[in-house]
Amino acid sequence: MATKRKSTATKQKTLKDLFHETLKDIYFAEKQILKALPKMAKEANSEDLRKAFETHFEETGTHVERLEKVFELIDEPARGKTCDAILGIVEEGKEVMEEFEDSLALDSGLLAAAQAVEHYEISRYGTLRTWATQLGLSDAVGLLEETLEEEKKTDKLLTELAQTSVNQEAAS
Amino acid sequence: MATKRKSTATKQKTLKDLFHETLKDIYFAEKQILKALPKMAKEANSEDLRKAFETHFEETGTHVERLEKVFELIDEPARGKTCDAILGIVEEGKEVMEEFEDSLALDSGLLAAAQAVEHYEISRYGTLRTWATQLGLSDAVGLLEETLEEEKKTDKLLTELAQTSVNQEAAS
Repeated sequence: MATKRKSTATKQKTLKDLFHETLKDIYFAEKQILKALPKMAKEANSEDLRKAFETHFEETGTHVERLEKVFELIDEPARGKTCDAILGIVEEGKEVMEEFEDSLALDSGLLAAAQAVEHYEISRYGTLRTWATQLGLSDAVGLLEETLEEEKKTDKLLTELAQTSVNQEAAS
Repeated sequence: MATKRKSTATKQKTLKDLFHETLKDIYFAEKQILKALPKMAKEANSEDLRKAFETHFEETGTHVERLEKVFELIDEPARGKTCDAILGIVEEGKEVMEEFEDSLALDSGLLAAAQAVEHYEISRYGTLRTWATQLGLSDAVGLLEETLEEEKKTDKLLTELAQTSVNQEAAS
């Protein structure tokens, strides 16, 4: 224990380390989302919702590429690390898909799961953009900002879908 | 397997069931947050951040009470169910606290963890409010809306803290 503390003290961790750790976290998360979205699209009853998931799947591929560019900018290999948060969020989505499989409310559950994912990403990209600004990584700021705006746009679209046709069917 | 499908088919799940399940999820989450916030306040180096966590701890108590009123409105006992998402988010926060314990970047990590929590809640309360509207639960809509606005306000305050003094110290 004493040794561990000593070693921490001798190598003081910085905001750049935190930025790198969080980059690995969201990189892992985006890859999990790439796996989950086709399943969600397949389950969706509403055509609009299916299309929204398919479009977001394409966008997510671009988000992964942008993250790889950010890894390059900080001279680190593009590598993820297990992100318990996204695993938990995706797990909850799976449970809803199973429990509401034959229900008219399935699409509402899929929408809720997708919005939980979007909000996790909005939080992480917002944080990373702020830190990139403070670290003077201006190219990274631009890349992170682009993705952040797309995540926000997707969340807005999902909110619109949730407030209109998709859920009204389930409530009837 | 055939039996399971049959039983699902005979009792079609509705949006009201989904609303109830999600209410249990966020009720569990709020209670986890009540446990985590005092630890985060204790760890924070910045006085402003500590105060923000303390204020949000008080608010969270009110959020729990409001959820209990919503359970009453749908004639269900106030009971949580394990929410893997919040457990994952809180776990990540703990990891950051451990890894960056002696670092100037600790507050930045605490802020990021808190914002991930806020965004999870914003997503859940937004979803629940939309569903309450569709289910005609107007009293629940008001209660959920109040909490949603407080979560958004907290997230905004945390963003301001992240963009100003707290992180600039870590980047220096």
